[in-house]
Amino acid sequence: MLERIDINVDCGESFGNWRMGIDERIMPLITTANAACGFHGGDPMTMLRTVDYAKAAGIVIGAHPGLPDLAGFGRRAMALSADETYACMMYQAGALRAFVEAKGLALHHLKPHGAFYGMLNNDKALAAAAVRAIRDVCPKPMLYWAGPVKGRALSEVALAEGVRLVSEVYFDLEYDDDGFLILQRGVGEVDMARTRERIRNFFQTGEVTSVSGNRVAIPAESICVHGDGPSAIPIVESIREIAGELGIALKPVSA
Amino acid sequence: MLERIDINVDCGESFGNWRMGIDERIMPLITTANAACGFHGGDPMTMLRTVDYAKAAGIVIGAHPGLPDLAGFGRRAMALSADETYACMMYQAGALRAFVEAKGLALHHLKPHGAFYGMLNNDKALAAAAVRAIRDVCPKPMLYWAGPVKGRALSEVALAEGVRLVSEVYFDLEYDDDGFLILQRGVGEVDMARTRERIRNFFQTGEVTSVSGNRVAIPAESICVHGDGPSAIPIVESIREIAGELGIALKPVSA
Amino acid sequence: MLERIDINVDCGESFGNWRMGIDERIMPLITTANAACGFHGGDPMTMLRTVDYAKAAGIVIGAHPGLPDLAGFGRRAMALSADETYACMMYQAGALRAFVEAKGLALHHLKPHGAFYGMLNNDKALAAAAVRAIRDVCPKPMLYWAGPVKGRALSEVALAEGVRLVSEVYFDLEYDDDGFLILQRGVGEVDMARTRERIRNFFQTGEVTSVSGNRVAIPAESICVHGDGPSAIPIVESIREIAGELGIALKPVSA
Amino acid sequence: MLERIDINVDCGESFGNWRMGIDERIMPLITTANAACGFHGGDPMTMLRTVDYAKAAGIVIGAHPGLPDLAGFGRRAMALSADETYACMMYQAGALRAFVEAKGLALHHLKPHGAFYGMLNNDKALAAAAVRAIRDVCPKPMLYWAGPVKGRALSEVALAEGVRLVSEVYFDLEYDDDGFLILQRGVGEVDMARTRERIRNFFQTGEVTSVSGNRVAIPAESICVHGDGPSAIPIVESIREIAGELGIALKPVSA
Repeated sequence: MLERIDINVDCGESFGNWRMGIDERIMPLITTANAACGFHGGDPMTMLRTVDYAKAAGIVIGAHPGLPDLAGFGRRAMALSADETYACMMYQAGALRAFVEAKGLALHHLKPHGAFYGMLNNDKALAAAAVRAIRDVCPKPMLYWAGPVKGRALSEVALAEGVRLVSEVYFDLEYDDDGFLILQRGVGEVDMARTRERIRNFFQTGEVTSVSGNRVAIPAESICVHGDGPSAIPIVESIREIAGELGIALKPVSA
Repeated sequence: MLERIDINVDCGESFGNWRMGIDERIMPLITTANAACGFHGGDPMTMLRTVDYAKAAGIVIGAHPGLPDLAGFGRRAMALSADETYACMMYQAGALRAFVEAKGLALHHLKPHGAFYGMLNNDKALAAAAVRAIRDVCPKPMLYWAGPVKGRALSEVALAEGVRLVSEVYFDLEYDDDGFLILQRGVGEVDMARTRERIRNFFQTGEVTSVSGNRVAIPAESICVHGDGPSAIPIVESIREIAGELGIALKPVSA
Repeated sequence: MLERIDINVDCGESFGNWRMGIDERIMPLITTANAACGFHGGDPMTMLRTVDYAKAAGIVIGAHPGLPDLAGFGRRAMALSADETYACMMYQAGALRAFVEAKGLALHHLKPHGAFYGMLNNDKALAAAAVRAIRDVCPKPMLYWAGPVKGRALSEVALAEGVRLVSEVYFDLEYDDDGFLILQRGVGEVDMARTRERIRNFFQTGEVTSVSGNRVAIPAESICVHGDGPSAIPIVESIREIAGELGIALKPVSA
Repeated sequence: MLERIDINVDCGESFGNWRMGIDERIMPLITTANAACGFHGGDPMTMLRTVDYAKAAGIVIGAHPGLPDLAGFGRRAMALSADETYACMMYQAGALRAFVEAKGLALHHLKPHGAFYGMLNNDKALAAAAVRAIRDVCPKPMLYWAGPVKGRALSEVALAEGVRLVSEVYFDLEYDDDGFLILQRGVGEVDMARTRERIRNFFQTGEVTSVSGNRVAIPAESICVHGDGPSAIPIVESIREIAGELGIALKPVSA
């Protein structure tokens, strides 16, 4: 049985007049926010608001930097160099950190967004640049991470460089037999009865059931919930309720 | 006779593939750089490079935030709200601060760019928001400033809020009888003989001659030189030479 | 009694992954769409989709150009020059026209968005530049227009230059005694009983009741409905129903 | 011996306050301009100016659309879908076409820029989308093209769809034995004696010498010169002089 768990959600992905997600409603229910930083979503006003919400909710907040592609929401891979990778991460996380520190909080972690995340997993040079940025901008370097550490550039480099890896589990996505997420664009409505079963099961065993029906151990410290999915609130409420029932503490991850 | 003087130049105003200014050449000759932060000019790669140049030159570096208007180079006034003003300054200065601190330097000051600067001078609410940002993002809040303090919103609010005002003098622009600069778009070639005379005279008396021929005291701690002007290097070299002759130390301003 | 009326709605104001408005639902119910062109909202993919919807709905489509300010949704006035005004309108309307003509349709009209519209009303030089763009880009120059023609720069110049002015009436906004709209940011839910009364009354008399209770004639050929208002669909359905009842034809405006 | 030749140069790649290239000087010396359209370079004011220059020089003008990546100058490949490819080309070429037609000129051709060009060469679906855009936006569909037609997606699809392919030769780049260009970022100073020899030789034989010393036939109708290269003017002047000597007419390509 788990003793504690964190819930993290990507927040602050509105842009200007366009709203996305349900930050005001979901942030009081979770323990960790990943805030967009203006490249794939978010803008200075949205970041100001998101940090205010995090402060009001008493949760920790990290940076969710993306590719410089607003119209593509950071979901179109771009041929960035290692230096551009470092500079884009520093710029975004630095901008967020200013808002965070002005509220008396600390920048908690980094979690790259969308296609950026995928690129960093497939290229050692980009991964090294990203890890350097995490170390340069995070007071206590921490990276949120889904799936096995071995076999992906970003996690391997992060581990080697002493960055704290916070492993995640997702209940609104499916897993393959190796414990890797089966990614899809957008997250649809989920079957809540099955999802509650998955949550309870994971809390009790630390395992999930893969698409082919096998049990796979996911050594996760944090549950990531897609804030723009239609079932976001029910999932988070179920996590809270089942955790409460089982005596599992909901707490942000510490360094 | 002055004992010491600072030379500040707006730097890092290239954008992507487009070059502006002569940062590599001028930064080793000055004492303070104001780095563009990506809204009117500059981009993450340019900021990384500019901070590297400042580190190599051993000079201090502050943020030069502008309006969110790349195509207009931040020279077209925009109807920003006070919150938008605060958020735009925090975002830009925070992004730069991350690069600066990663190099073991400290963010030295803020100096708003172009039309942003003008807007802050004419509106108390915007000025208050800008001063709040300076206090929230600068370890030792400092604002570079041209002209008399009284009668302009930004300087009055900054003074009232305890922000250190660093008064500037310009030798590539003209003055009116009240000590206000006569602004113009772009700075042309200057008469170097006259400019050297103005520099020497200012060093000896703390005064400049206005366009109508009157002597006006400018209590400046820093000389601002337009890095994109055709005479930038000759002006800076003249300042260095005349200061050397008169025994005036070239030093950045301290808090 | 009116014989015919047009209904126009601002469409295509989504941006990338962010959705705004209810284009798919409302476009089949109206006669004219004003499509955003990428500066304040819209992007190439959204424009492609919006033109497809217009084609499918069998309605006419014009350009709704805005200020180059995505983060501000074109609602923050900017100090554009006359040449910049011309160039921004040509660029946006030209881009839209390509999509429109590729579908075998014609660009129907121009209607400036938000703060751009306000700026053009207050400055003769900008208005002249905008009118020149309308004439240069519209096969049959036409401008949608709210309020009296006299006393506003844009309408006066357009009239003088032979641009067809299409006067609008709004039922989701209030009027003053001079027939000018009382503008507000965002449009809330409206009282549908009163709105239906206003619509019927306008159809029968060509008049609206101002906020101070006076009857004001509005010589409108088109009703503009805010597609992002919560009552957009009920208003459009009421217009259609009452027009049907009174034998008023719903038709786009012709040149 | 050739009877006629065209000279095309990428123009209008300045952005806002940042200048690139030498449009004013080079456009009077060439026969065809490819104008940037705002995504990788160019902006509405620059496009207005570029079309004015083309009109004044009496040359033809086509669109040079790029990836939506200003900071990367369109040189970083991006994972665009086929629909996004179509929409990005229509938007940019449509915007330019409006300026061109307002001056009484016609949009002459399309020539994709930088990494966009490379992407279209490697993917049939993207190439098909691009060719559809060329057909939808060009009055007489024409595509400028370097290298053999066979073996590259864009040229093969264009040929199959009846788009006129205008083959180019470059004297500021080297060739391999198959007649493909050896691409490099930026074009340095060239040896003018050798370049004049290459020009004369090509005019007389229709061939170039590859890097391995073999003669390769290049069935080109147009010479492309990099306007941002340091030898741009000397190359263009040499072409004009040698063409004059040999009685070769300098003329734009017709459909």
